[in-house]
Amino acid sequence: MKLLSFQIQTPDGPVARIGALADGDRVVDLTSACHVQLLREQSCDPRAAARIARALVPPDMVAFIEGGRKTLEAARQALDEVLNRGEVPEEMRVFYPLQSLKLLPAVPRPPMFRDFMAFEEHVRKSAQAMGLGEVPKMWYAFPVYYKGNVHSLAAHGDDVLWPSYSRLLDFELEMAAIIGRRGSDIPEERAREHIFGYTVLNDFSARDVQGQEMSVGLGPAKGKDFRTGTVLGPWIVTADELPDPYSLRMTVRVNGEVWSEGHSGTIHWRFEQMIAHASRSETLYPGEVFGSGTVGRGCGLELGRWLKPGDVVELEIEGIGVLRNRVVRPGR
Amino acid sequence: MKLLSFQIQTPDGPVARIGALADGDRVVDLTSACHVQLLREQSCDPRAAARIARALVPPDMVAFIEGGRKTLEAARQALDEVLNRGEVPEEMRVFYPLQSLKLLPAVPRPPMFRDFMAFEEHVRKSAQAMGLGEVPKMWYAFPVYYKGNVHSLAAHGDDVLWPSYSRLLDFELEMAAIIGRRGSDIPEERAREHIFGYTVLNDFSARDVQGQEMSVGLGPAKGKDFRTGTVLGPWIVTADELPDPYSLRMTVRVNGEVWSEGHSGTIHWRFEQMIAHASRSETLYPGEVFGSGTVGRGCGLELGRWLKPGDVVELEIEGIGVLRNRVVRPGR
Repeated sequence: MKLLSFQIQTPDGPVARIGALADGDRVVDLTSACHVQLLREQSCDPRAAARIARALVPPDMVAFIEGGRKTLEAARQALDEVLNRGEVPEEMRVFYPLQSLKLLPAVPRPPMFRDFMAFEEHVRKSAQAMGLGEVPKMWYAFPVYYKGNVHSLAAHGDDVLWPSYSRLLDFELEMAAIIGRRGSDIPEERAREHIFGYTVLNDFSARDVQGQEMSVGLGPAKGKDFRTGTVLGPWIVTADELPDPYSLRMTVRVNGEVWSEGHSGTIHWRFEQMIAHASRSETLYPGEVFGSGTVGRGCGLELGRWLKPGDVVELEIEGIGVLRNRVVRPGR
Repeated sequence: MKLLSFQIQTPDGPVARIGALADGDRVVDLTSACHVQLLREQSCDPRAAARIARALVPPDMVAFIEGGRKTLEAARQALDEVLNRGEVPEEMRVFYPLQSLKLLPAVPRPPMFRDFMAFEEHVRKSAQAMGLGEVPKMWYAFPVYYKGNVHSLAAHGDDVLWPSYSRLLDFELEMAAIIGRRGSDIPEERAREHIFGYTVLNDFSARDVQGQEMSVGLGPAKGKDFRTGTVLGPWIVTADELPDPYSLRMTVRVNGEVWSEGHSGTIHWRFEQMIAHASRSETLYPGEVFGSGTVGRGCGLELGRWLKPGDVVELEIEGIGVLRNRVVRPGR
């Protein structure tokens, strides 16, 4: 399944819903689909149907992932029910055209976001571009990461706001794995079982500030932390639909022009190794996001090309989709 | 007020409650106190009293802080009610002896935890101890931070688990400010209004791994990220009770022996400056934790002394309290 979070308006304000991409551009609201199924089955009182549907197929992505196999199976059955087994009553809002939706980040509020640096070419080329010399020796010892900002996420289609304090805003094409199952001290050979699915990640970076910060030793801070600085989406492809995440073309387009082409197979530290490493003496939780780090040549720093306000950045990963955002400078 | 989070058992499992430290070692459950007050006032149906009490004085610390002045005033009134205005019905559990309580981290699940490095002496001494030379020039340009792990928090009294992959476990004596009010682009001169209160922070660190990681440039990762690695507590002192947070003695004791004495007034980057910096082009939310970084001589690395399994670490900040934890090596 391709699972997406989207926002609808209610009398209590905007709320998140969860949808599956059906044929072409149709999105099925999975919680509502489960509700419809329960009403048709008549296995509970109609007044209980909405409550049971929300528990079985919750509209919040982290809760959905926490539901594990139980929720995934209920969602698949509900999807089959509304697509293949007769008319849906008109008063139940189950189908939406994709184009009409306000998408949310693929995981709107992940419990944690670790961003790794797993592609050797990116490390080498960006170290050279920043005048930092060679790949640090310890990079080969274990997968390093920093923890990103889970409050600054943006979605496919959102405008990305140029931070006021930066002159050099850059994109970064990354693949992200979403954790599906709680675990600690996960062996590498079992790590794949803990991956729920994959999405595209654009880790926007204020390069000038990032370089200054990294010279102090604590890693990037305001170089990555600004409103809309991290884009996750457009949706999550469940792991069963991407049996080999290391065989995918990764493409950057800016204003429609191809700026670079990379490949997920060039990754040095695999998600399985990241999961094994991060889970040592520590628990990983459903919904956590593991970023791969930038694919080789997947950012402007490596290419010597820089964004300007108004540019539209499209990041594509084969088998997942296209993540598109326009960069805007607020108040100008 | 001194506000603490504690855990009680219920038929649905353990839940968090919020308490205020009253005279000596008595803790008042503030949500229950508000409930009692509503029943006495008879301003609503008894069946609504618990619901209204939970909304006005929520038992979750982040929700409590989000409640702002409204919640703080309701909590103060409820505290006055149960302490000074007659007997509390026996079936209402309002009072607990502090010693009997299982404390939770002062903020059990903060939305974010930024840990700064604001004390110059610590930066200088630890850089020397790690053979890294002088204080980096950019350290003086702006307050740097890394983002810590909000899932690995421990409380006062908890055993801290030595991570399996480290030989050198260290403590760090820090002061933490808790954000009370949402804001972005907060000017330094208004920043104090955004501080809800202060607590003690022990930022345990796997020094051997941390040093290796920092050589790659993304800052500390598994050097800080392990179960129970960050201790917050024992409670939050609200800002009104600490008018000058930069006038406090800070003491480390290990197994009762004083290892070091520092002072919060030696801080170079103040919380107000951290808040102004971090909030540039970004929103801060109630309940976020800002760590000061280690006070000068506030860690074993600077002192050339190292913890061993079984040691009891006590960190004290004048006017806040003592944060005590034993270090244990699991399975040995």
